[in-house]
Amino acid sequence: MLGAHHPLVKSIRKAVRHGGRTSEGWVVAEGPHLVQEAGDKAREVLGTPAWPGAARIVPDDVFAQISSVEHSQGVLALVDLPESPVEAMLTPNCLLVLLDGVQDPGNAGTILRSAEAFGATGVVFLKGSVNPANPKTVRASAGSIFRMPFATAEFESLNLGCPVFAAMPNAPLAARDAPLGQPCALLIGNEGSGIPAEHLAKATPVSIPTARVESLNAALAAAILLYEAQRQRA
Amino acid sequence: MLGAHHPLVKSIRKAVRHGGRTSEGWVVAEGPHLVQEAGDKAREVLGTPAWPGAARIVPDDVFAQISSVEHSQGVLALVDLPESPVEAMLTPNCLLVLLDGVQDPGNAGTILRSAEAFGATGVVFLKGSVNPANPKTVRASAGSIFRMPFATAEFESLNLGCPVFAAMPNAPLAARDAPLGQPCALLIGNEGSGIPAEHLAKATPVSIPTARVESLNAALAAAILLYEAQRQRA
Repeated sequence: MLGAHHPLVKSIRKAVRHGGRTSEGWVVAEGPHLVQEAGDKAREVLGTPAWPGAARIVPDDVFAQISSVEHSQGVLALVDLPESPVEAMLTPNCLLVLLDGVQDPGNAGTILRSAEAFGATGVVFLKGSVNPANPKTVRASAGSIFRMPFATAEFESLNLGCPVFAAMPNAPLAARDAPLGQPCALLIGNEGSGIPAEHLAKATPVSIPTARVESLNAALAAAILLYEAQRQRA
Repeated sequence: MLGAHHPLVKSIRKAVRHGGRTSEGWVVAEGPHLVQEAGDKAREVLGTPAWPGAARIVPDDVFAQISSVEHSQGVLALVDLPESPVEAMLTPNCLLVLLDGVQDPGNAGTILRSAEAFGATGVVFLKGSVNPANPKTVRASAGSIFRMPFATAEFESLNLGCPVFAAMPNAPLAARDAPLGQPCALLIGNEGSGIPAEHLAKATPVSIPTARVESLNAALAAAILLYEAQRQRA
């Protein structure tokens, strides 16, 4: 049994509180579904005594301290999940997603899932976005983060060699008319403030035409642009 | 000042707890944005003493009892928002959304918003779905519920006179190839169990082709089908 002061428990508690990796550099993936999805990437599996098959047993009250979910099922994995180099995402028919200040971990995780669903080749978390290793992002991705290459980077340091299309509510160019079938990147901005002007200057704004509603949330906008890109490629 | 035992306060508390309308038949819309969006549909505006312009003042501790949001800003409106007849949604180029067991109020509200964004003519909450008047649905709709015609109905009682396309993860017919440009209805199932077989039998299944990911959440699936329908109509 691991006590509240075991280094691993302290490391997980810190990761959950700060929304990032453990001191060991691992990602916290909580819940039976995520533990299963992590597969052999899991370096440790911790569970309450009620959880069968957990390699490390943690008392219920200690697990409650390191849980990041509302109705915990008492099991989590520590997953060895390195970032990917952006270069590796630049395949001949690449489709990247650049998160530019997306701060809601639920939105970021949902976007990771949509990225996998629609065949994106990678997701880059630009400066000002949530940490991809935030346990809430991992959970919202429903396991997609274990398969979708992701990275953190600064916009200025990117050398993509392909056009960047920026999601902008009122851009004159509609997504359906934009050439998203070519290798490209989709730039998704902050939920409130959108995309910084200096990044927009290096991108082609595209819109999802909507009636009356001013803008869609970041996760919906990303899913629809990814769907549109996949449709044009099909 | 309205006390904790004022009939209006008790009525709101009950509506929030049960996820429905007040005894007066009004919809609870909390937060300054929703109060503004409700406009002249608001029959009462209740606020804490800190809230300027509220017609009815409620002490902070009493407002906390009737609030349904995590970080309350201390103001809510009671809105006169009747359902619409389904017949009125059946315009010549209609686009209906039928929620078939969508139970998450956040998903239902997001779908109301997408429905407005992509020009749907109405949203029908079928038996087994969340109450459209659930304060959490109202909030997730970000005001779209005040403008988008909605109704509750049983599937068996519907007489639409137009094809129904059912969102089904593995249907052979992809949404992009389905004739969503004609007058039609989109059937969106429960987050876990999908669409009942007897309803599917009266619909044409359509899929959103995805790689590896088994299914998208109900709000994403609805948004993409609505986007696709709007794209075909543009």
